[in-house]
Amino acid sequence: MRFVKGHGTGNDFVIVPDPDGDLDLTPELVRALCDRRTGVGADGVLRVVLAAAEPGLPGTAGVGRAGEARWFMDYRNADGSLAEMCGNGLRVFGRYLVDAGYERPGLIPVATRAGVRGADVPSDGEVTVEMGPPSIGPLGGVTVTIAGRVFQATNVSMGNPHAVCFADDLNPAGLAGLDLTVPPVIPTDAFPAGANVEVVVGAPDTTRMRVYERGVGETSSCGTGACAVAVVSATRAGQGPGVAIPVDLPGGRLTVLWDTDQVRLRGPAVLVSDGLLRADWLAAARAAEPALA
Amino acid sequence: MRFVKGHGTGNDFVIVPDPDGDLDLTPELVRALCDRRTGVGADGVLRVVLAAAEPGLPGTAGVGRAGEARWFMDYRNADGSLAEMCGNGLRVFGRYLVDAGYERPGLIPVATRAGVRGADVPSDGEVTVEMGPPSIGPLGGVTVTIAGRVFQATNVSMGNPHAVCFADDLNPAGLAGLDLTVPPVIPTDAFPAGANVEVVVGAPDTTRMRVYERGVGETSSCGTGACAVAVVSATRAGQGPGVAIPVDLPGGRLTVLWDTDQVRLRGPAVLVSDGLLRADWLAAARAAEPALA
Repeated sequence: MRFVKGHGTGNDFVIVPDPDGDLDLTPELVRALCDRRTGVGADGVLRVVLAAAEPGLPGTAGVGRAGEARWFMDYRNADGSLAEMCGNGLRVFGRYLVDAGYERPGLIPVATRAGVRGADVPSDGEVTVEMGPPSIGPLGGVTVTIAGRVFQATNVSMGNPHAVCFADDLNPAGLAGLDLTVPPVIPTDAFPAGANVEVVVGAPDTTRMRVYERGVGETSSCGTGACAVAVVSATRAGQGPGVAIPVDLPGGRLTVLWDTDQVRLRGPAVLVSDGLLRADWLAAARAAEPALA
Repeated sequence: MRFVKGHGTGNDFVIVPDPDGDLDLTPELVRALCDRRTGVGADGVLRVVLAAAEPGLPGTAGVGRAGEARWFMDYRNADGSLAEMCGNGLRVFGRYLVDAGYERPGLIPVATRAGVRGADVPSDGEVTVEMGPPSIGPLGGVTVTIAGRVFQATNVSMGNPHAVCFADDLNPAGLAGLDLTVPPVIPTDAFPAGANVEVVVGAPDTTRMRVYERGVGETSSCGTGACAVAVVSATRAGQGPGVAIPVDLPGGRLTVLWDTDQVRLRGPAVLVSDGLLRADWLAAARAAEPALA
């Protein structure tokens, strides 16, 4: 079983080419692959499969580009669960398609569980992906508490919920020193399904953030979080669609392009290594799975 | 640049074959390789080099078997520093030598910075490695404090220093619940260079431990720590050399064979995958290195 290891701003993935959809990628195998000590180690798995080989692919018909996507990005979280979309993952997925010779450089439509998303992959350098339109609540409309500190946060949906907290009394060093080991307290009426929480300093041209991901803890990068932060940062400065906002995260810099139709996210997509799993390791991982029905 | 990823009880390594010693393995490259998000990810690197290709190999002449070892295990910590020996690493190193066809199954002498150590590698299954003789201080002779709890610990040297703390008032669940996030407090007169600290419950046939490694924090496994714990466990039970003690660690089970000449450690050695680094990734890692003098 072949794979490629890749990352985007430190958000890392095991890419598994499976064009014909032959692979039985069980939750147990995903967990074994993503284990950072006894497996390959990653935040998630990106299975690369032809859309035609995935019957009943959900969501692709709803975005007006049904049939346009040749490839389906089957993204799984490290805990084995299915995920709809991942901005950092889609950049790495797009880079892999071009690198492997499956697609030419350019705009590549990719089917995801959240619908078809375009990945603009140049022959070299950063990749830009479509993230969908933002839905921005009232600025500072919700109260969030992080490590005993109270913020007036902005509720933003990028398909998933975000609480964007500007810390205007902190400088970058203060932001870096903030304790994000404890889960932030967010109002359940505004966020019935929880939320990712972003803490931010700076103006649109100097935006710097950290993120606490729902159910995960602090991470080095979150693509939808960077988009949510950028549109709030721009809105606070009286700006609207048509701007490009650089956002610095612990894992590196992303650039958010807030366009009139939707938000696009540009950033690095790095392929680290090619790999081949050992047969004994794979057999042991398979043997640990519950018996198939 | 080719590599193999492997682990022993969750202690994981990037194995880099370099028989002729051609590779310029800088501390920066080691750190880049071991980075768990932007690199391959591991606790350390095992460079596999012919002893003849390593001029001025230290220590091998001192153990009475100079010239016996064909291979040198060049072990580096994830922070790029040199390390003398690693019991879990030596098992994986031995398994790799046989798997790659560099050695036949059997007892393989390996040069390390701590001298020549034998790895007994069967064609299949667990690997047994020589860990040297233990030096055991008075039982309960030193006072150690862990998370506010005071232990009478035993000072054991396995080449490196250990403070072995038996928690006779804890059951396995109590051991699992102990807070090992804060560094234990150990007496500097007994441990001038610091020590790994082991917390243990059980008798020789039911020994269960956790370990806080000096300068690292809690780890899933520590080979020298398991040896130190086993000889204290046996000594407390009135036993001496000639016993085999199973030791359960968070990462799995090791078996310590306390023989009259020295301690041997038996346990799993798993090869996970074969890998090939991408040229662009390697070029970027190399470019981040300080200019060579």
